[in-house]
Amino acid sequence: MTATKAYAAQSASSPLSSWSFERREPGPKDVQFDILYCGVCHTDIHLVRNEWGSSVYPMVPGHEIVGRVTRVGNQVRKFKTGDLVGVGCLVDSCRDCENCAEGLEQYCLNGNSPTYNGKEQDKKTITYGGYSKMMVTNEDFVLRVSDKLPLQAVAPLLCAGITTYSPLKHWRIGKGHKIGVLGLGGLGHMAVKFGVAFGAEVTMLSGSASKEADAKRLGAHKFLLTKDEQQLKKVNGYFDFIIDTVSAPHDHNLYLGLLRTNGVLICVGAPPTPTQILGFNLIGGRKSIAGSLIGGLPETQEMLDYCAANNIVSDVEMIDMKDISTAYERMLKGDVRYRFVIDMASL
Amino acid sequence: MTATKAYAAQSASSPLSSWSFERREPGPKDVQFDILYCGVCHTDIHLVRNEWGSSVYPMVPGHEIVGRVTRVGNQVRKFKTGDLVGVGCLVDSCRDCENCAEGLEQYCLNGNSPTYNGKEQDKKTITYGGYSKMMVTNEDFVLRVSDKLPLQAVAPLLCAGITTYSPLKHWRIGKGHKIGVLGLGGLGHMAVKFGVAFGAEVTMLSGSASKEADAKRLGAHKFLLTKDEQQLKKVNGYFDFIIDTVSAPHDHNLYLGLLRTNGVLICVGAPPTPTQILGFNLIGGRKSIAGSLIGGLPETQEMLDYCAANNIVSDVEMIDMKDISTAYERMLKGDVRYRFVIDMASL
Repeated sequence: MTATKAYAAQSASSPLSSWSFERREPGPKDVQFDILYCGVCHTDIHLVRNEWGSSVYPMVPGHEIVGRVTRVGNQVRKFKTGDLVGVGCLVDSCRDCENCAEGLEQYCLNGNSPTYNGKEQDKKTITYGGYSKMMVTNEDFVLRVSDKLPLQAVAPLLCAGITTYSPLKHWRIGKGHKIGVLGLGGLGHMAVKFGVAFGAEVTMLSGSASKEADAKRLGAHKFLLTKDEQQLKKVNGYFDFIIDTVSAPHDHNLYLGLLRTNGVLICVGAPPTPTQILGFNLIGGRKSIAGSLIGGLPETQEMLDYCAANNIVSDVEMIDMKDISTAYERMLKGDVRYRFVIDMASL
Repeated sequence: MTATKAYAAQSASSPLSSWSFERREPGPKDVQFDILYCGVCHTDIHLVRNEWGSSVYPMVPGHEIVGRVTRVGNQVRKFKTGDLVGVGCLVDSCRDCENCAEGLEQYCLNGNSPTYNGKEQDKKTITYGGYSKMMVTNEDFVLRVSDKLPLQAVAPLLCAGITTYSPLKHWRIGKGHKIGVLGLGGLGHMAVKFGVAFGAEVTMLSGSASKEADAKRLGAHKFLLTKDEQQLKKVNGYFDFIIDTVSAPHDHNLYLGLLRTNGVLICVGAPPTPTQILGFNLIGGRKSIAGSLIGGLPETQEMLDYCAANNIVSDVEMIDMKDISTAYERMLKGDVRYRFVIDMASL
């Protein structure tokens, strides 16, 4: 066992603080790596504060992790010491169900192992995430990271990136499609980048007029202020798809109205409370509301490779580990462009 | 103009009663036909009672219409005197928008002309439906009806039939799929028949144990009582698609749980009030809720031809025109197997 420095939440109400815990010795199929950078996802805040009721303490958050390999087990084939690697939202799954067999480990039917606030496949050992110095992960859940991109800006691809890449791929969104991206945050800014890269016409739908310049800089072709009824009226029935990245409660019916016949409102943000949907708004144009959750391991690797080949990264603001509480406060105000990333050297 | 006997609602609160109005003389492209049978759709009740707030009186309901041609305009090419014909939920559309161009007149972007309680494309002339002796309709909205099937049992295909046939076709449902049909009424019994005909494994999901024998007789392979939690637990994550025919408010989250990864809950019944959907229930398995509305003219003809070739009709109970109020009362109690059809000779 290896003592590992970390930042942890000890309860739903206490601020994150220094903690130490033990990582397992690498088994034959394990990769041990030093964590260099870890992105800060809104999920971290939800779980640290037990807003979904499922939190276990002490909790070491973080599932947007990049690092460099320091040791590998004797059966590891894909990695060697010195390699750059990433770990996203999952560290294991049953590997046996039909979804795992298809590389859809995010939908594992027997319960996958989230990177933190979850359990290993022994269903006992608590998992600890990337707000820590070092990690030991089965090689099948470790991703190859290119040295072509700035590493700190790669970290958020492991959650914000794959969460938006996956639905765009699943619904085959690209040339000839008009898409709306609702909400310009960590997820939204990646949805814009991927949507543009895939050839779609991308409109940013945001509640903040101040974000227009940024949306355009990120590549969005159009910008619409969601508070302005006149602007919204002009895009009634306009979009083939809307990628809804907003996790605060909001009126989904409004956005169903902006979809064309056969349009799909794809939710990747999960409001904690139910939303009210009027059936006529679906039936009237054969429309759908769908959800999508991160991505499986093969698709996450594909996304990282695509980003390396196409020079796509997240826009990040670097922070020191000790400033995490301030970062959370700023995130809650939407004051981050567009992802905080912790420099783990600061721990 | 031709005086036409009918049954009409004079207000939201008065019972249907005898009325007479004038149909137009057939224009060059019009087909005039004597109505032989008209199915009674739940929509008739909603509109007669102004439950959707859009009703115009006097109202002559009825959009499941079959009859025999008595006159045709001099430019009519598809029909001649003596032909059997049908008219469904639409009697015209703009014919100009992209949806009309694709034969999706039900989603006409400029507003189609419903068979009753709507307006012709002049946006002035009120339309009157099939609870009447005779009808004059543009030939493009008139369907060919085979003489191979019992005519009275063909009438409900024009709404209940196409409303369930269309989504099964759109989502390419067939061999290898497990589908649930929620609700055994006019729509539900047709969904079972089409689902079985297309090769899917069909499970009837019903709140009435008394309907099990009927569901099996209609071809359903399995029957589940939706009130029995133990039975529902067994089909958690089981269905590729659920066709939801229920138009009373109900808990859609319950049925999302019965879907497999990538499953779709297809709503063809439209509850009058919004339903509460928890985002996690969509995101957790890349699931969707979708809606579907009747079908376009080409697909409605395809459906009628398919039914003639495969000997598919609706299960009907014949009534006389004067008994319509009793029929409505029985429908509200679910006491009809599975569609009332008015013998128009009784008017």
